[in-house]
Amino acid sequence: MSSRGSGLQSKKAILIICDGMGDRPQKDFGNRTPLEAAYTPHLDRLAKNGWTGLMDPVSPGTPPGSDVAHFSLFGYDPYKYYTGRGGLEAAGAGIQLAPTDVAFRCNFSTVDDNFTVSDRRAGRIKDGTADLAKALNGMRLETVRDLTVEFVQTVEHRGVLVLRGSRLSRHVSDVDPHQLGVRVLESKPLENSPEAARTTNALNEFTRRSYEVLKNHPVNIERIRVGEKPANIILARGAGTFPQITPLSRLYGVRTACIAVVALVRGICKIAGMDVIDVEGATGGLNTNFMGKAEAASEALQRYDYVLLHVKATDVAGHDGNFEAKKKAIESIDRMIGRLTQAIDLSQCYVVVTADHTTSVSVRDHSGDPVPILIFGPDVLASDVTRFCERSVAHGNLGRIRGFDITPIVMNYLGKIKKFGY
Amino acid sequence: MSSRGSGLQSKKAILIICDGMGDRPQKDFGNRTPLEAAYTPHLDRLAKNGWTGLMDPVSPGTPPGSDVAHFSLFGYDPYKYYTGRGGLEAAGAGIQLAPTDVAFRCNFSTVDDNFTVSDRRAGRIKDGTADLAKALNGMRLETVRDLTVEFVQTVEHRGVLVLRGSRLSRHVSDVDPHQLGVRVLESKPLENSPEAARTTNALNEFTRRSYEVLKNHPVNIERIRVGEKPANIILARGAGTFPQITPLSRLYGVRTACIAVVALVRGICKIAGMDVIDVEGATGGLNTNFMGKAEAASEALQRYDYVLLHVKATDVAGHDGNFEAKKKAIESIDRMIGRLTQAIDLSQCYVVVTADHTTSVSVRDHSGDPVPILIFGPDVLASDVTRFCERSVAHGNLGRIRGFDITPIVMNYLGKIKKFGY
Repeated sequence: MSSRGSGLQSKKAILIICDGMGDRPQKDFGNRTPLEAAYTPHLDRLAKNGWTGLMDPVSPGTPPGSDVAHFSLFGYDPYKYYTGRGGLEAAGAGIQLAPTDVAFRCNFSTVDDNFTVSDRRAGRIKDGTADLAKALNGMRLETVRDLTVEFVQTVEHRGVLVLRGSRLSRHVSDVDPHQLGVRVLESKPLENSPEAARTTNALNEFTRRSYEVLKNHPVNIERIRVGEKPANIILARGAGTFPQITPLSRLYGVRTACIAVVALVRGICKIAGMDVIDVEGATGGLNTNFMGKAEAASEALQRYDYVLLHVKATDVAGHDGNFEAKKKAIESIDRMIGRLTQAIDLSQCYVVVTADHTTSVSVRDHSGDPVPILIFGPDVLASDVTRFCERSVAHGNLGRIRGFDITPIVMNYLGKIKKFGY
Repeated sequence: MSSRGSGLQSKKAILIICDGMGDRPQKDFGNRTPLEAAYTPHLDRLAKNGWTGLMDPVSPGTPPGSDVAHFSLFGYDPYKYYTGRGGLEAAGAGIQLAPTDVAFRCNFSTVDDNFTVSDRRAGRIKDGTADLAKALNGMRLETVRDLTVEFVQTVEHRGVLVLRGSRLSRHVSDVDPHQLGVRVLESKPLENSPEAARTTNALNEFTRRSYEVLKNHPVNIERIRVGEKPANIILARGAGTFPQITPLSRLYGVRTACIAVVALVRGICKIAGMDVIDVEGATGGLNTNFMGKAEAASEALQRYDYVLLHVKATDVAGHDGNFEAKKKAIESIDRMIGRLTQAIDLSQCYVVVTADHTTSVSVRDHSGDPVPILIFGPDVLASDVTRFCERSVAHGNLGRIRGFDITPIVMNYLGKIKKFGY
């Protein structure tokens, strides 16, 4: 009869995540969302000929962080598997965590003698952080003696603290107060366990001691001399452990890769078993190299079964509250998708386009709204929805799904998902 | 006001499961699915006047086995309650399992001296299996001494092995390699427990010993003499225990019955507390007695509140990759439903039509696609969808539901579901 059965094995899929792309209708802009206002002929064509619907990244109403949202979009129910940001940051920085280690996302920050925060990013420090990190590394704590302290600086003011040892807990609060003009917080246990108490003791001592070690460090003396803010303390947040998940490659037997700039997203991708592909000129900002991403993605689809293409620009514009910038970013994404879909064989490739959450220009932060999604490719049913936007896909044929449904749906089309039962 | 409140008690419902009926658009057939290509005036009428939508048998993207799908459609979340195929097969064969017993679906198969499989069904042996089973029954194992071995032959080459005893686990792999020309597998523990190790020891010894017992059995000597393949080994698969579920009859206080031929489906129905009704000429194949099923169903609705009518033909055609046969089976189902709906009082009976999964003619196996569903009857809202097919119901009024939502939805209409809370 048909020869298509065997063809299944060679099908590919690309998941395009437009970070924070979803939005709300904006009164000042004709009651339209940036996606509605944007000219998006390529997205519209895919939407018309594919499944369209709404997707809750984690659950209706819950605003997800980028970490949790991506976790979900790769098929891991974050309510089961998410174990805090720190573990993902560590993975992004290439740090191997043992199951008993606890890691924290950190900033080099600036405080006064009274531990009042004047700059959470130490004047966005760029140079000298490796020397500062070296001074902290291997610190012996007095309150908790059987731990090893590891501090790794990453990009600019960012770093990762790892407490290595046993009897630790990720259920502890941040020392980073997340605002200026207030004192550094004391980390408190978030559960009633000796492990959490032990971890707060270690973290609080590390925070205090980081100030003692860094305040008179030559790098900071020089910074003060030239009028820059000293990076005189480490402020930790987002305690986490390494998530116990099975990589997609093993779960489904697929070769996977990601094209992403943001460290956190790259970390999650690595944990999910993806190879990370770098693209020249990709910045994570509004000025990213959209066309370079399209080309890298079409190349990656030669070698990989499932490719993630992440674009941060829409989220940046949302956080900035900039409608026009967001609309422009969406139009750039549309052209990127136009280039991509010209370059690949659409009879053999599924294209999924969605957002990891809404970053509305009126809220300027993540919201728990559902986001639009389209799934185009061979074997899909046409939705006949003529525009890809929040309003129209709500009448699409996909209905309303969850973020962690997406990867199983794609794997089903690739013939890579195991039957449940007989 | 209305006198219908009391009438609620007498309302009935029938759930018609067209096995594997869902499909994908087929390029060689005008980009239509078999359901779209079929002439289905009765289904279309029910769809227009009832709820229509998409249903994920277990979860989006996950291809369910028939066992798991039926479990779900009867309202039992398989992620919570499914305990493997073996327990369901045992129930289908009328075997009582203790909670500690582990059962396996088995085939009489043919191997050479080297345990290489040449026929997984022993030439579809029909006669003599009772004698062969007798020779295996009550075998004393040497590796695990405190178990009782029970082997029951069912239909043709099929049977059920029960290991009765304590400290057993269903988390063990199959000895059946599911293909020809390869050696029988060694069962391995699928969890790190002494119970799983003990169960594999017992199963592996039973498999070896079944060959020793059967190879020179008079039944097989005679089969070889007349040129037939000997049924010289038992190949087990699908370890399972008896699922701990409450029958529908007790859960909702309804009288339930099923009309089904397939042993596995009958097994699940029995576990769910249904009476099993036989229909003359019903075969589980393309040539089944559709009209006999319709008549049996309309009779059953006199005596029962909730009737399952299962038709296998659509799944058979899907596995065969035969578009025309599937279309024809759907048209036969449509006429069956026409006969049924003529015979019953539609003002007092709900009719639900759906599939347990997609068996697309292009994939020739179960897929994780959503399937169409319609719910017709008193008190339902008309969807105004004019065709019952994958494409149109995606825009229906029911939205997208899960398999295990169906039975509660029906029980709600029958006034049989308890309030949750006060």
